[in-house]
Amino acid sequence: MKRPCVYVVGIGPGEEAMMTGQAVRTLEESDVIVGYPVYLDLLGERFREKERLSTPMRQEVERCRMAYEKAMEGKTVSLICSGDAGVYGLASLMYELSPEYPGCELVIVPGITAANSGAALLGAPLNHDYCVISLSDLLTPWEQIRRRLLAAVDGDFAIALYNPSSRKRADYLQKACDILLERAEGERACGYVENIGREGTRVTVCTLKELRERQVNMFTTVFIGNSQSVLQDGKLVTKRGYRL
Amino acid sequence: MKRPCVYVVGIGPGEEAMMTGQAVRTLEESDVIVGYPVYLDLLGERFREKERLSTPMRQEVERCRMAYEKAMEGKTVSLICSGDAGVYGLASLMYELSPEYPGCELVIVPGITAANSGAALLGAPLNHDYCVISLSDLLTPWEQIRRRLLAAVDGDFAIALYNPSSRKRADYLQKACDILLERAEGERACGYVENIGREGTRVTVCTLKELRERQVNMFTTVFIGNSQSVLQDGKLVTKRGYRL
Repeated sequence: MKRPCVYVVGIGPGEEAMMTGQAVRTLEESDVIVGYPVYLDLLGERFREKERLSTPMRQEVERCRMAYEKAMEGKTVSLICSGDAGVYGLASLMYELSPEYPGCELVIVPGITAANSGAALLGAPLNHDYCVISLSDLLTPWEQIRRRLLAAVDGDFAIALYNPSSRKRADYLQKACDILLERAEGERACGYVENIGREGTRVTVCTLKELRERQVNMFTTVFIGNSQSVLQDGKLVTKRGYRL
Repeated sequence: MKRPCVYVVGIGPGEEAMMTGQAVRTLEESDVIVGYPVYLDLLGERFREKERLSTPMRQEVERCRMAYEKAMEGKTVSLICSGDAGVYGLASLMYELSPEYPGCELVIVPGITAANSGAALLGAPLNHDYCVISLSDLLTPWEQIRRRLLAAVDGDFAIALYNPSSRKRADYLQKACDILLERAEGERACGYVENIGREGTRVTVCTLKELRERQVNMFTTVFIGNSQSVLQDGKLVTKRGYRL
């Protein structure tokens, strides 16, 4: 009998063209696809015939157990995550739970995370050293987020911000900008991308001072340039340092 | 006549299965593929019939101009980068040069960068806030690299290190570890992946103290956990913080 296995698959930002060949093939070869309902919908018609299982938001532990249990029954299981499975995705939680399912293998299939898919639409904001920071304080104390924002400015990193807003955290981007503005100039080049790889994609550039006043939705990735980044014809560009 | 356009395409770590559908289709539809010779070789047989142009290492500016000039002649041109085109790739340099080629459009096609493809092989090292830092001082003063390494530890970020070594910089990983060890404990969970997505892929976990003594080659991506990361059955795992 084959060894039980769960594939933890990053499906990228949304449209199938942005999945890797490896991710598409893994889903094709799966009996069961487990995921958050919104992500299952993103897959579209192509995988409709698969057994599909989901749990609501904040029931990630149950979702992971569901994937393990189906695998222990002998099914080939893909647990899908938006973007990359290892960037705020379920890869680490699956490893944490793995001692409870001895003999079950885990294979992580990477995908394009929003930092990189968003950057491609915005120009080249992360073309030098960069940080990725989530503004969600559901699992991380705000003091830790604050410490990371300040360290990112101190190191002069370009920054990609995930989860900049939600219904309950409408002012979090503003709070983050205020922290950044303690040490970065108001004219710092910034930008954001809404609905990457989905209907209604929209790209905006602005300064850090302007960003503070913007209301963005939860499907937005925000980019803060480093001290050398520039706005150029509607694009945010962070130079690598080549001599021209 | 169609508007001239260069596609700057991230081809991921190497094997075609790790390219996105969008990247494969873009190369298929191109007349000319421009790239560093090693990256052209990574593409394998599939795109052999295309016109292929390259320049040696450190002639990146000339390579970019070559891509622009072919596009201005009316050819459909893909300029390829390993990993993601916007992570230490040629996307920003193409934007810098764009004023010299008025009317030529740039489209950035993202790919899986080594931070994410390497993380998938190593476990889940970047599953919380993380930094990406290159140890190459060809274009960045070492003092800036040092400053970023310290800021990354101060912010308690997980870290992916690119370009950890080269023939002329054989001791750079050791130097970087010494800087990290000024503020991080020797038992910090770490790991590295050699030849991601290519022949000879090898995954190793170790502590920061042990990492300092390792000699890695230039096709290696190094991962430093945050203060909460753990080594678990040969994997490096950075928890997101779910309650079990």
